[in-house]
Amino acid sequence: MITSDKTVSAIPIDVLQSFCERVLTKAGVSAVDARTTAEVLVMTDSWGIFTHGTKLLAGYLRRIREGGLRVDCSPQIALEGKAWAVVDGQSTLGQVTSSFAVQCAIEKARHCGIGYVGVRNSCHFGAAGYYAWQVARENMLGIAMANDSPSVAAPGSRGAVIGSNPIAYAIPAGSNDPLLLDISVATAAGGKILAHSQRGEPIPQGWLIGSDGHPTSDGSLFPDRASLAPMGGHKGYGIGLLIEVLSGVLTGAGVTRQIPSWVFGDPTSPTHHGAAFLAIDIGAIMRPPVYERRMEALVNEIHSTDAAEGCDGVLLPGQREWEFRRRALRDGIQMPSDVLSVLEELASQEGVCLSTS
Amino acid sequence: MITSDKTVSAIPIDVLQSFCERVLTKAGVSAVDARTTAEVLVMTDSWGIFTHGTKLLAGYLRRIREGGLRVDCSPQIALEGKAWAVVDGQSTLGQVTSSFAVQCAIEKARHCGIGYVGVRNSCHFGAAGYYAWQVARENMLGIAMANDSPSVAAPGSRGAVIGSNPIAYAIPAGSNDPLLLDISVATAAGGKILAHSQRGEPIPQGWLIGSDGHPTSDGSLFPDRASLAPMGGHKGYGIGLLIEVLSGVLTGAGVTRQIPSWVFGDPTSPTHHGAAFLAIDIGAIMRPPVYERRMEALVNEIHSTDAAEGCDGVLLPGQREWEFRRRALRDGIQMPSDVLSVLEELASQEGVCLSTS
Repeated sequence: MITSDKTVSAIPIDVLQSFCERVLTKAGVSAVDARTTAEVLVMTDSWGIFTHGTKLLAGYLRRIREGGLRVDCSPQIALEGKAWAVVDGQSTLGQVTSSFAVQCAIEKARHCGIGYVGVRNSCHFGAAGYYAWQVARENMLGIAMANDSPSVAAPGSRGAVIGSNPIAYAIPAGSNDPLLLDISVATAAGGKILAHSQRGEPIPQGWLIGSDGHPTSDGSLFPDRASLAPMGGHKGYGIGLLIEVLSGVLTGAGVTRQIPSWVFGDPTSPTHHGAAFLAIDIGAIMRPPVYERRMEALVNEIHSTDAAEGCDGVLLPGQREWEFRRRALRDGIQMPSDVLSVLEELASQEGVCLSTS
Repeated sequence: MITSDKTVSAIPIDVLQSFCERVLTKAGVSAVDARTTAEVLVMTDSWGIFTHGTKLLAGYLRRIREGGLRVDCSPQIALEGKAWAVVDGQSTLGQVTSSFAVQCAIEKARHCGIGYVGVRNSCHFGAAGYYAWQVARENMLGIAMANDSPSVAAPGSRGAVIGSNPIAYAIPAGSNDPLLLDISVATAAGGKILAHSQRGEPIPQGWLIGSDGHPTSDGSLFPDRASLAPMGGHKGYGIGLLIEVLSGVLTGAGVTRQIPSWVFGDPTSPTHHGAAFLAIDIGAIMRPPVYERRMEALVNEIHSTDAAEGCDGVLLPGQREWEFRRRALRDGIQMPSDVLSVLEELASQEGVCLSTS
């Protein structure tokens, strides 16, 4: 997910956080919502997931200024029961709504052992993994998912049927970093297709489906005349539909084509994204020392697995991201040049200073 | 998942149900547990998923007779909270324990909106989809999963790291059949590898990982010297780990290598399989007519998607299985010859008559 190895500058985490907050508050976002949103984006960059970090800020600002994202509203609990709730995002920032919904899921899980919180009237929420990690910080198992504008084909379809519908989890693992997985249901992300196209390289077999419903290696067709192949064929398509139901159908959010692209769609209208969060309170179910020992045994077993020739070892989900974050905390975030350009342009447009080291 | 098109005989569903019940009770299984187990296996055959239906009966009987599966015990709730429970299967049949756990998850969801029930001391439970469907019958969204003896590699591993760890869901869909997905986290099932090997065909690229950690097309290496490739690489491996934690770590069940193969392992010892079931009470969250309209709109949208050349249409998960079941209800289950041979051998061994039409 790291977009480029060409790093030109390191930005300290607190500098990037402060920059994002200042840019957002300048656009009318409240201090607390700016902080929440900035934390999601900066944490994501600090994991090295630059496709879903501060690079997105310019697009959010555009929607705020054009009215599609509202900054005069706050997410509300629309409906709730003992172990579940539906949050209405009121078309404010997806990061604000999702962080609110996650806290709600954690509360439900604290009372009942498990909590499901669905979200409607949200927007793009950044990296699903951030919200799963918010749950894991509370010693709970967290799952986060969302629907999106269709970009992924079904087996045998000519066009996109479902969104890339991200799903992420974070699982506390005792003395180890939490397991952290953040994936879409596409075989390869749209960003990867575009990167191959920009470099003039053919798209690897199995990534892209042309408008005739058959595989294509012509990246220039995407996204207008080609769609992403679902991972594992019917498996990824099937998981994508489950995410669509939990995030979209059951929450009252937009479903499939009812959600416009948050990037290319009309910036004056809300996107009606849905999302869903699950929290399971580990300590309610198993004594924490027992759970921790069991997770540590699993982690150790995987780390002691013999690796294939040419591989350093078998990784756990999130291992690369936590290592990247440790470096970022120590040395600042090594930003790829494309992300840095976007931020520098934003700094200049908004008249907000961005210091790099 | 349909093992063969060569059908030689149709067996009426009630005849197959009665046959299974008689065979099981003869081995000492109580009438009620025999009925439960038979229902799981026969329903699975009636969906055309012959790899996980009555074909398994002979293996279960062997474990019952050798003592690894106990028939003098019943599953018990070991621990519970408002919206969760852990069921101890007491090493009885996985079908009996899982059906008990599903009822428990449904009860929890009825009270709290969502229920999570983990299982320990279970055994192979057949098709995960059956349990998800048991939940969907109650107008709830059901998810079922289990861990198993390792057979699936991680990216970069030389050997198997996790089980094929099935996950299934069933989602009520108004006037349509429930959506029903039942998958493993492997790219292709072990049974498919064996079938290719038996026919002397090379294994397609991307299905099998040799003991050097690199892809191989030599099916004769499986399962001793090769492992299954995870679907979508790190994605399937990551989902498999989530299933391992929810089914194994958090329930007190066996984890990865602690679970022997239920087929090839010592039949006198329990297998310690884990499982997990989730139920979400749709009617608690959304008025049923609204939910049904929304699901019907999603189903119609997918069915009206333009299909690729050579494809009849875009299918929903479970569509083939429900069509197969309608034929089975009308004409009996068209059994593939390999399954029929297994059943006929069993009938002869056990002295229990199996009538076919």
